[in-house]
Amino acid sequence: MGGSAQPRELTAPRLSANDAAMLIRPAQASDAEGIWRVLQPTLAAGETYALPPDMNREQALAYWTRADESPGEHDVFIAEERDVVLGTYFIRPNQLGGGSHVANCAYMVAPAATGRGIAQAMCEHSLGHARSRGFLAIQFNFVVSTNERAVRLWEHAGFKVVGRVPKAFRHPTSGLVDALVMHQFL
Amino acid sequence: MGGSAQPRELTAPRLSANDAAMLIRPAQASDAEGIWRVLQPTLAAGETYALPPDMNREQALAYWTRADESPGEHDVFIAEERDVVLGTYFIRPNQLGGGSHVANCAYMVAPAATGRGIAQAMCEHSLGHARSRGFLAIQFNFVVSTNERAVRLWEHAGFKVVGRVPKAFRHPTSGLVDALVMHQFL
Repeated sequence: MGGSAQPRELTAPRLSANDAAMLIRPAQASDAEGIWRVLQPTLAAGETYALPPDMNREQALAYWTRADESPGEHDVFIAEERDVVLGTYFIRPNQLGGGSHVANCAYMVAPAATGRGIAQAMCEHSLGHARSRGFLAIQFNFVVSTNERAVRLWEHAGFKVVGRVPKAFRHPTSGLVDALVMHQFL
Repeated sequence: MGGSAQPRELTAPRLSANDAAMLIRPAQASDAEGIWRVLQPTLAAGETYALPPDMNREQALAYWTRADESPGEHDVFIAEERDVVLGTYFIRPNQLGGGSHVANCAYMVAPAATGRGIAQAMCEHSLGHARSRGFLAIQFNFVVSTNERAVRLWEHAGFKVVGRVPKAFRHPTSGLVDALVMHQFL
């Protein structure tokens, strides 16, 4: 894969919000329930991910963790605080073969924990992890354009909009809205 | 899904090249060998699809035909002439949930049969089939920018470039080249 591998940052960033230590670490099988509690409300809302809102626990965890794939291929992390999962992300090659040098990531934060910088911390962690795996870039395939908080966050983190697919997402209240392709070289 | 369903065209277009009847029809299990003979050289060349060039028959057919998915979800067609498979395409929802109204398609033509309008005929067929399934648009996620024949063909068929991902594909001889996101409303 090549690329500029850099040391992977595994220490816990301290969040100013309440000065509690938040740890981002690889997910384990025992984190399944915590991950599901993060995924479920976001999936059910159906406003930000092109996934069935009625995905059940088994389906959602299968999609998110891809336990059938090799470790080092599809990696899942959680952000936790006092043993409570507040967020999770995965990273994987966005394409195979000649496209495998570009990573894809997806992030979710528990609704009760939004606004505390958890998505940003996971994004920074994913950039470091992607570099450590030798990826040359990260691509987001489908950022719902009405998810303005996410778009601002990704742009702040260095991502650029490289594509805009018109009316690609049927938002539950806004109707057909655009989806953005976002990209960052590492 | 909604959308303007139109009658599906199942008659065989006649190609002027040699005035032989070419039929585009749903693939059957017995077409596996013919499909593999179309896929194999294109995969091995590694110039146009972000798939492993060394995919074996089983892996390639699993990817292309997704026999584990429901009929009417992932549909596979072949273009044949005198019982020889000259091309194949699949059509499926590009995303799930709120993104399932947009189709994705992929097409391959046997190297010996290029330049005879088979890709164009399959593309036209796929537009009709996508309408009949109620899709509102077709999106191509990853058109290798150096595949100029394909880009011209898709643009001629009504697709527009809605995104350009820089250096997303490692071409075997041209190095890192861009990938295009192309899109057409139905």
